[in-house]
Amino acid sequence: MAGVDVPKARQVYLVLRERIASGGLHSGDVLPGEQALAAEHNVSRITVRKALAELEREGMVDRRRGAGTFVRLAAAPKPVVADIADVLSNLVAMGRGTDVRLLAFGYGEPASAVAEALRLAPGERAQRSVRVRMVDGEPFSHLTTHVPERIGVTYSEAELASRPLLALLERSGVEVDRATQEIGAVLATPDVAAALNIDIGSALIALTRVVYDAEGRGVEHLAALYRPDRYAFRMDLERTGADDGRRWSPATGEHQSTKRSRSARKHEGKAQ
Amino acid sequence: MAGVDVPKARQVYLVLRERIASGGLHSGDVLPGEQALAAEHNVSRITVRKALAELEREGMVDRRRGAGTFVRLAAAPKPVVADIADVLSNLVAMGRGTDVRLLAFGYGEPASAVAEALRLAPGERAQRSVRVRMVDGEPFSHLTTHVPERIGVTYSEAELASRPLLALLERSGVEVDRATQEIGAVLATPDVAAALNIDIGSALIALTRVVYDAEGRGVEHLAALYRPDRYAFRMDLERTGADDGRRWSPATGEHQSTKRSRSARKHEGKAQ
Repeated sequence: MAGVDVPKARQVYLVLRERIASGGLHSGDVLPGEQALAAEHNVSRITVRKALAELEREGMVDRRRGAGTFVRLAAAPKPVVADIADVLSNLVAMGRGTDVRLLAFGYGEPASAVAEALRLAPGERAQRSVRVRMVDGEPFSHLTTHVPERIGVTYSEAELASRPLLALLERSGVEVDRATQEIGAVLATPDVAAALNIDIGSALIALTRVVYDAEGRGVEHLAALYRPDRYAFRMDLERTGADDGRRWSPATGEHQSTKRSRSARKHEGKAQ
Repeated sequence: MAGVDVPKARQVYLVLRERIASGGLHSGDVLPGEQALAAEHNVSRITVRKALAELEREGMVDRRRGAGTFVRLAAAPKPVVADIADVLSNLVAMGRGTDVRLLAFGYGEPASAVAEALRLAPGERAQRSVRVRMVDGEPFSHLTTHVPERIGVTYSEAELASRPLLALLERSGVEVDRATQEIGAVLATPDVAAALNIDIGSALIALTRVVYDAEGRGVEHLAALYRPDRYAFRMDLERTGADDGRRWSPATGEHQSTKRSRSARKHEGKAQ
């Protein structure tokens, strides 16, 4: 009986933890009282107390009798802030050790959304693989890829577990040319949560990328999920155009180098 | 008593709803049985039944006695897939009607993360505003902005409620030059959930942008939250470089026009 409202307490805990981790609440800040938190989250005070106890166990808050609950920010590892276009190259360039675990590998007819994106013929099969990328030994991203069977058969399961997929595609003679991607957010399902070592229902960055060859044929469909506590996509923009036509555009190389030097300065600052 | 595990049922409901809405489950697919779902989510069968009943009420599944639960995709409005660099210009270009509600407006010392990003002097105040952008009459994004006080005082609360912030900054003589942005994912807190008309604990796209003037001074800090069921960021990439240096880069104008025509074709296809 005591455990039935654990899930609600976990939800309150997740939301508060995220507010602290994201910088919305700061070290020394006082959290609202139990009654206010209960009203805000539409739960009982017992539920709020459980959530706060969990935060205290993790060292994120101090509860002082009569004084309130104080944020005590545990030293969270800074997220890797990397290039939205090319996560893997960016990680390698930063000297981060990355490693891949292959969770599933096989052939079959993909879901219709994937078949449509890859423009497969009716009944055409695809290779489906599920991988988890580890960065510095910690789960970092969950990657579900589909590749048309005619291309997938040019490499083995073992090769996929040890080499970047794009390198395998290019080795097979595919002329990888361009890609479209969409970025959204999803809740962690039970299988993904287990693979990424996070709570079910945590927020994840969702990136869907379709890669095309020079003839415009789809050669890879990637559905990638990233832990936002370990990763943020970064991009630099510049203001272009004149008058009513002024708008943001991705920064050119000149600004990219500005970004790198600024970013380097920032890291030096943090390291002090 | 009957209500105590509603939150857990809601979590199962949210995860299943998202799998259906995101295309992970398709019209006609059979959901796993109650026992399998209960084991997967680590909840009771009663909780699973509540979640399925909620999905059925919303018309997303059919439960057929003895046969199982079938996905019946309610016609969800397609997310607006827009330019990651310039959401507002993109929406306007698509002819979407947008409108803003100003929820909060005032001056004070911002949180240290914001003060640091804007490089405010110690004790320097900033204007803080919270706005909800409506697209076609529905809540779409939740925008919290900070602007240094010296710039903020050049426009009024009423002007902010009716004109784009960047236009107001440029009118004040600020030479808006470039920006950096980071994209992540967060769970909806109670206040944001209420403003965006979604469930607490839903996944949101989080975009943090810092805008600089030509001298490199921070002029705006934006923390934007987007509903992923109504929005996805889109970008086009091209493969550049040679041999080991091959990598993804944002597509140039040539590919942008390819994207537009392809995107137009896609929309024509969907409209049938």
